[in-house]
Amino acid sequence: MGSPMRRVSQEDTWSGQVHPDIASERHVQSFDVERLTNILDRGAQNTARRRKVESIIHSDPEFSCKDNYFMTHNERYEAAVKKAFHTQMLTQSLGWSEEELVYVYRALSGDTVLGVHTGFLKALRSLGSEEQIAKWEPLCKTCRIIATYAQTELGHGTYLQGLETEATYDATTQEFVIHSPTITATKWWPGNLGRSATHALVLAQLTCSGARRGMHAFIVPIRSLQDHTPLPGITVGDIGPKMNFDELDNGFPRLDHVRVPRENMLNRFAQVLSDGTYIKRGTEQSNYLFMVVTRVEILLGEILPPLQKACVIAMRYSVIRRQSRLRPSDPEAKILDYQTQQHKLFPQLAMSYAFHFLAISILEFFQRSYNAILDRDFSLLPELHALSSGTKAMMADFCIQGAETCRRACGGHGYSKLSGLPSLVTRVSAASSYEGENTVLYLQVARFLVKSYLQAHMSPGSTSQRFLPSSVAYLTAPDLSRCPAQRAADFLCPELYTTAWAHVATRLIKDSVYHLQTRTQSGQDQHEAWNQTTVTHLQAAKSLPASWASQGSHYKCMVSGLTVEPTFEQDPQVICVHIKI
Amino acid sequence: MGSPMRRVSQEDTWSGQVHPDIASERHVQSFDVERLTNILDRGAQNTARRRKVESIIHSDPEFSCKDNYFMTHNERYEAAVKKAFHTQMLTQSLGWSEEELVYVYRALSGDTVLGVHTGFLKALRSLGSEEQIAKWEPLCKTCRIIATYAQTELGHGTYLQGLETEATYDATTQEFVIHSPTITATKWWPGNLGRSATHALVLAQLTCSGARRGMHAFIVPIRSLQDHTPLPGITVGDIGPKMNFDELDNGFPRLDHVRVPRENMLNRFAQVLSDGTYIKRGTEQSNYLFMVVTRVEILLGEILPPLQKACVIAMRYSVIRRQSRLRPSDPEAKILDYQTQQHKLFPQLAMSYAFHFLAISILEFFQRSYNAILDRDFSLLPELHALSSGTKAMMADFCIQGAETCRRACGGHGYSKLSGLPSLVTRVSAASSYEGENTVLYLQVARFLVKSYLQAHMSPGSTSQRFLPSSVAYLTAPDLSRCPAQRAADFLCPELYTTAWAHVATRLIKDSVYHLQTRTQSGQDQHEAWNQTTVTHLQAAKSLPASWASQGSHYKCMVSGLTVEPTFEQDPQVICVHIKI
Repeated sequence: MGSPMRRVSQEDTWSGQVHPDIASERHVQSFDVERLTNILDRGAQNTARRRKVESIIHSDPEFSCKDNYFMTHNERYEAAVKKAFHTQMLTQSLGWSEEELVYVYRALSGDTVLGVHTGFLKALRSLGSEEQIAKWEPLCKTCRIIATYAQTELGHGTYLQGLETEATYDATTQEFVIHSPTITATKWWPGNLGRSATHALVLAQLTCSGARRGMHAFIVPIRSLQDHTPLPGITVGDIGPKMNFDELDNGFPRLDHVRVPRENMLNRFAQVLSDGTYIKRGTEQSNYLFMVVTRVEILLGEILPPLQKACVIAMRYSVIRRQSRLRPSDPEAKILDYQTQQHKLFPQLAMSYAFHFLAISILEFFQRSYNAILDRDFSLLPELHALSSGTKAMMADFCIQGAETCRRACGGHGYSKLSGLPSLVTRVSAASSYEGENTVLYLQVARFLVKSYLQAHMSPGSTSQRFLPSSVAYLTAPDLSRCPAQRAADFLCPELYTTAWAHVATRLIKDSVYHLQTRTQSGQDQHEAWNQTTVTHLQAAKSLPASWASQGSHYKCMVSGLTVEPTFEQDPQVICVHIKI
Repeated sequence: MGSPMRRVSQEDTWSGQVHPDIASERHVQSFDVERLTNILDRGAQNTARRRKVESIIHSDPEFSCKDNYFMTHNERYEAAVKKAFHTQMLTQSLGWSEEELVYVYRALSGDTVLGVHTGFLKALRSLGSEEQIAKWEPLCKTCRIIATYAQTELGHGTYLQGLETEATYDATTQEFVIHSPTITATKWWPGNLGRSATHALVLAQLTCSGARRGMHAFIVPIRSLQDHTPLPGITVGDIGPKMNFDELDNGFPRLDHVRVPRENMLNRFAQVLSDGTYIKRGTEQSNYLFMVVTRVEILLGEILPPLQKACVIAMRYSVIRRQSRLRPSDPEAKILDYQTQQHKLFPQLAMSYAFHFLAISILEFFQRSYNAILDRDFSLLPELHALSSGTKAMMADFCIQGAETCRRACGGHGYSKLSGLPSLVTRVSAASSYEGENTVLYLQVARFLVKSYLQAHMSPGSTSQRFLPSSVAYLTAPDLSRCPAQRAADFLCPELYTTAWAHVATRLIKDSVYHLQTRTQSGQDQHEAWNQTTVTHLQAAKSLPASWASQGSHYKCMVSGLTVEPTFEQDPQVICVHIKI
């Protein structure tokens, strides 16, 4: 406030440099930016590595995205294909590691086509045997095949048991016959499939020796490796325009009795012998493992970055945009000086920090449990499934809302694609549906919570109670009779929030169980009772990831008002994003 | 529930007809659909007239929009131009009235370019003298000129006093010199201006006889009527891609000392005589009248339809989409049978009814006050401004959120443009910024409320108190000591909500005034105190349109839970959208 108003004129010497209003804000920073950056990167070494990768990407004209908003759908696709293959070439010549490739794809902002090709690789590693991985991974890594993951159908997404695609084992030829019996059985949405993919990992209902065995994954060749035409029995194409992802050829394949050899079924957790004998090595859920992997990876890879970028754009805009006057005698004020603008943006900024550390704690938990699961120890799978599902749904909901809040905070300019904000919003909006529809995910969390609550309230000291998953250990904590805060300053203490969230979560879960039991005890069918109480369960489920977020032992984030002030306490891994109201 | 599951196959005989699941839902309707339709249309005669117009539009291949999602930006624009001129020709040959044209534009869903051309006409009628209207209206109606309205600048939207475009009167030639002194003074966003318009109504700061006179409107020729090239001194072009409105060429004009004759200043409320003498006939606010007109018209014309359409699409989808089972032995259930889906969609449906009747009551109030204002009786202008601003902001917020809720309720298919939902959402999203940014509008409502509250609490019986605007008459009602509901059924009574909203609104406004006064009484500068309490004012402002909505004497809408059941009570103009939780 009070600084002179600057009008832009064509003669301004600072055009192209940092705007003086931004420079002056940067000058008054109250914390060490580099130190915070290193913490976000999980170490100064990673910051250096990330910057090296980013400087290569951003200085390479092949990766320019300056014409993106002016391209047709087709031009976007072709540009993205070029970028994908340029990335492959650089990866080979520069020897980028898997860790560096994470920075590469983040810097490319998804503006490339082969994301699902990489997804295929991850599914292969989750569901394939060592021999299968040894066979397919090199083909995939060198792009001798282009692969995708085909699960969702036109008529089924959420309810995997309802998938209609059939895989019937024919012992006479030792082949699976993969077939779409109806229009609604057509696989729908696989990325890269519209025009690019040569192979798809098709999820289908296995029948062998006359018995249905549930969903399994099959590698199905889709297009000729000679001339890229669809193979016999396959009808394939693009599903048409979407709200975003113009660069991606989401596709549909319809399969008419397509035969694949027996070894194309991924068999880490189940196998069909040549005579049709079915051997199971995992649980019912093990085929869902890839979805858990994906849900964890998209937190930092897809869902959070649009919010982070929207915050940066909206904050910078709010510093250089001046509009109206705080006092009649003043020059026009930076819009960030208006209380209402702060009230819009600062919670989003705080949230983007909180979610970063939440996602990292989920990732660490995932890394601890994933290898055990691959070795067929499934004990942590229910908790991992609940935490990853709940966190994905909660982060998606808040990141969509947060990015849109940032967009609207930029007024008309936030509606111009050139601000970057519309694309961030329309892209992250997909996150409420992909990799598990949010409401469905919350309700799966709710089932986990109801089960854990009932387990916690068995007779004290029973075996079940001792094995309560650690993320819901608060269910056995004594009831808080009142809020432990004594002074206003106590509300700046993260522990208070941990306790408060545990209390809220326990109460909501208790209510949810109470409503359910009241109905079943009065004679209502248990399924009907569940459906009639799902709105309550949804509320309870939303408390799990929030209480987990406040519990994270390494990183704690706190959000309580206006003015962002990252403080580094004695433990360098504790960052408080204090926002005073 | 319980009806047999239908899979779609290519042999289905009902393909192309009404889906049997929709037909069966329609069969169990509990109210007279035609009667409700007539009420929504405000009379059976209007229903017939609307249907006649719609049948012409929908059967005319020139109006087909089937390729819209596959066109480039340029193709969309060209198609929209063709549709606009085809509409003009039909209007002449069929003699469509202004009322019928409302149906025409609603049926075209904005898929035409000349909306702002019509806007120009309305601005002309609000701000022009009778002679000016007689001169320009025929040129406009016959498309001999194509006109637009140019107010917002690159650097200014909200703060009209900050507009930089200058109009300096030169008495020697009896001309105004219209000039953009900086880059930020470039007009930005005018619809039709990018490629189509020949004339713009430019809002500029008038200077005559050396004195600044504030914002006035000037008709400025932009492009040659011979060859459509920009006229001397004018740089004009398209502002680039937006989140939606691909068909519309929003543009920018930069004006370099462009001269227009003295009679091109619209002079209903102010005039400059040939010698430069300035004559004022209106209030400071009269030049803002056109914005009020627009804000009222977009309620039913632009803001509500996307929510209504999104409701229709999401409801129909939820009836034919079957996913998962309510009981293990059941066939898959219609997703509308899930409580969580009902919880998403039914409030949006109820809201679309409530907003329809709210918008009509605002329109009626507008019609009562508009003619008085044109005759320079400005007594109702503050209330009209507050109600139209608050209603626009509230309806925009809820319609954006509601349309997006409908979109997400359709899962992945709601992300495909072919569902129609992404376009509805991205289009209505503009409504939070255009015709007054929502937060700014709410704060203008807040100023009206604070003023009204202080007026209401002067000594009883004083002159000011008697003239309290009728929409805030509740400010003088006695405090409710407790909720008047005695039984659960009382919550189905609209009067309860009217009383409750009046109570909530009064309390919020009282709080807001209290916070403001506490700060000023403790010595804080009044402007600083205002800024530091704006988040509270925002809350209070949001209660005005809601309390108005529940007060509307002709139409009352009530929203309280699940299952939509329109009931026609004794008074046929009272519709209760009872939604039981």
